[in-house]
Amino acid sequence: MSGIEDLKKLVIDFRDARDWKQFHNPKDCAISLLLEAAEVLEHFQWKSKEEIDEYLKDHRDDIGEELADVLYWVLLISNDLNIDISEALEKKIEKNNKKYPVDKSKGSHAKYTEL
Amino acid sequence: MSGIEDLKKLVIDFRDARDWKQFHNPKDCAISLLLEAAEVLEHFQWKSKEEIDEYLKDHRDDIGEELADVLYWVLLISNDLNIDISEALEKKIEKNNKKYPVDKSKGSHAKYTEL
Amino acid sequence: MSGIEDLKKLVIDFRDARDWKQFHNPKDCAISLLLEAAEVLEHFQWKSKEEIDEYLKDHRDDIGEELADVLYWVLLISNDLNIDISEALEKKIEKNNKKYPVDKSKGSHAKYTEL
Amino acid sequence: MSGIEDLKKLVIDFRDARDWKQFHNPKDCAISLLLEAAEVLEHFQWKSKEEIDEYLKDHRDDIGEELADVLYWVLLISNDLNIDISEALEKKIEKNNKKYPVDKSKGSHAKYTEL
Repeated sequence: MSGIEDLKKLVIDFRDARDWKQFHNPKDCAISLLLEAAEVLEHFQWKSKEEIDEYLKDHRDDIGEELADVLYWVLLISNDLNIDISEALEKKIEKNNKKYPVDKSKGSHAKYTEL
Repeated sequence: MSGIEDLKKLVIDFRDARDWKQFHNPKDCAISLLLEAAEVLEHFQWKSKEEIDEYLKDHRDDIGEELADVLYWVLLISNDLNIDISEALEKKIEKNNKKYPVDKSKGSHAKYTEL
Repeated sequence: MSGIEDLKKLVIDFRDARDWKQFHNPKDCAISLLLEAAEVLEHFQWKSKEEIDEYLKDHRDDIGEELADVLYWVLLISNDLNIDISEALEKKIEKNNKKYPVDKSKGSHAKYTEL
Repeated sequence: MSGIEDLKKLVIDFRDARDWKQFHNPKDCAISLLLEAAEVLEHFQWKSKEEIDEYLKDHRDDIGEELADVLYWVLLISNDLNIDISEALEKKIEKNNKKYPVDKSKGSHAKYTEL
């Protein structure tokens, strides 16, 4: 089982061995994050639910690779901006726990403003 | 220090308590991933490097929250598609280690096809 | 019937009356283009084909407004980069006419590399 | 000078000659719109203002082609959803004229909520 910190170290060691921090301003890194997310989405475009199920059989690793690229940038940006991403996720889930109380939101697709 | 599996459990428990899996087809989840990445990017738009440094002083938590939203979808999609995201990231870094050898790519911004 | 040049003039006059050209570097404008495209997509997320048909009855104008925002940035970027967007579209259609010959691509969803 | 309707006809004739309307549901078309916008953005990533100026000398046509792809989807989606895109843009500019009065917004980068 990997820790977030271990994975972040992997990413930052890879980057720093190449002396690439000089290129990594937040705006361009956030563009990378978005472009990698777009590549994830591209796998599912023009496909019905059934076609996606079929597609997954042979392309799980490809999609995993794109998701890994997204995670790469999440970890790198978090590192560079001094954000504790585990804590940020825990806080966000806590916040959403209040925003979407189980009894009101169970099985419902409504936005929290409509609950 | 959090493990990826702990965070994934947080995300999936939050989702399953609300019985929301029924809405979570891969295409719409990947759209969420992208929309959250867009919200990260939005924080840096129209700002120079100096303005971003200034902005970070008061908005670190807001950006952390958006990055957490991206991570939320990375973990949820990985879970639903049976992708081991830690392993996928480790493999991707290994692949990039070969694609971008340190001696050729150090300090260089060239794409691997141009190395 | 509006000409592209008339619409472009509308956009540029709106911008220049406010002296906003100073903010409009290509990178940030392209981010706007993308963020507006994301807002179009958001209208269709989490909806089945039937739900989209239903949704359209009351939200055609909202979607039109988001598409207009995308067009705004297409026209503004074209203007600032000295790109003749009508000519660019005509050329692109011509190129695609060769890439996707009617007899091979009719009714087929294959990428041109697979035709 | 091209009219919007002429360009839309070009796009729809290209599509219909290939019998591709059957694939063009709004959600997947909006994904295309977004993916093409991402390709525009990619041209400017990792470049400073000066590097972009330099880059433009040799890549104006490439960027024009990507912008044309975005316009292609704006016109196609407008057509399929019965949206008069010229009218939508005119209305949006009118709306923004009220939202951003010239005397208050001139030379200012503030959001309309802060004017």
